[in-house]
Amino acid sequence: MQERAVRTREVLLRAAAEVFGEVGYPGASIAKIIDRAGVTTGAAYFHFRSKEGLARAVIREQAADLDFPEGEAGLQRLLDLTLYLAREMRRNTLLRAGVRLAVEQSEAGLQEYSIYQWWAERFEQELEEARERGELLPEADAAVFASTLVAAFTGAQIMSQLASGRADLPGRIANLWRCLLPGLAPADVIDRLEITVDGGADTR
Amino acid sequence: MQERAVRTREVLLRAAAEVFGEVGYPGASIAKIIDRAGVTTGAAYFHFRSKEGLARAVIREQAADLDFPEGEAGLQRLLDLTLYLAREMRRNTLLRAGVRLAVEQSEAGLQEYSIYQWWAERFEQELEEARERGELLPEADAAVFASTLVAAFTGAQIMSQLASGRADLPGRIANLWRCLLPGLAPADVIDRLEITVDGGADTR
Repeated sequence: MQERAVRTREVLLRAAAEVFGEVGYPGASIAKIIDRAGVTTGAAYFHFRSKEGLARAVIREQAADLDFPEGEAGLQRLLDLTLYLAREMRRNTLLRAGVRLAVEQSEAGLQEYSIYQWWAERFEQELEEARERGELLPEADAAVFASTLVAAFTGAQIMSQLASGRADLPGRIANLWRCLLPGLAPADVIDRLEITVDGGADTR
Repeated sequence: MQERAVRTREVLLRAAAEVFGEVGYPGASIAKIIDRAGVTTGAAYFHFRSKEGLARAVIREQAADLDFPEGEAGLQRLLDLTLYLAREMRRNTLLRAGVRLAVEQSEAGLQEYSIYQWWAERFEQELEEARERGELLPEADAAVFASTLVAAFTGAQIMSQLASGRADLPGRIANLWRCLLPGLAPADVIDRLEITVDGGADTR
């Protein structure tokens, strides 16, 4: 795509995230999104033919504005990544809208499972790197833990949104790790990990 | 309430669960629910003034048609309970609609957190009974595990619905337990537990 076309698509994707985030899938319309984006209808339809197509893009590209934490591979980086995601759920419009649509998609009949798989594979890869560093218990199944981590994060963010407008999400993710770590890593590895919940109260 | 009024409310609640389960919150109307229930409008409005009121009742009373597994208190019973819930998600209309509305309620602005608390307290109570029987590790925090269990179940059922129409949900819940048990109970207690996934393929 030409540079201008790439830019138009980006503007549309972010406008869609804003509108879906504000009014949800049923309340949104492609006209409202095009209006928010400030692009021509012709330019918009070159990229997206329908509200459904825009919603799929927001779900699939929910991670596009993330700036993943760097640092050495291993359990600490995965832990930091999930706590970073918990904080980003409060301020990253594309992530928040993508997660909301992924959770509420039965309204729209989108059947978009691939983003959940994408996150599970991302987490599994981090766990396999942790294993190479000798940080995992031999019996810990990285794929099973990765899938459970995605499920628990998904549920925790729904509960946190209702309970506190997501203010307590970092604390909930920290608690989730306290439950999962004993099955994942030996005690001496767990003792070296830091679970830092800045910007969010620790909570049950 | 008189017996007939109690019966009318039950018929309305189940009709609401059917309609919300079929078309979701935005697609449902109180007229459609009254029509499905086959009651008079006057009788219906005696119990519920709005679609919102019906949705709240379906969320809060989602467990009303469950027949909780009996047996001795303890970890095995909690495990059996969650696997029973996983199977019921496929056939219990009230549970399925209540869970769906609880997950997708941001559309409706219901802010119904109480049902998540109710389940967390239910699970915590089972864990405390397990503790009294000496089944828990001393350092295991029952409230933290109970809340994580609710979050992980909530996320797992969303993922399972997308991946398999909930066919693989019992397998996902079994995997969740494999992740949580090492932080919850000593190895000899875990060894005695049975994780029975009947009616659903084991899965990652």
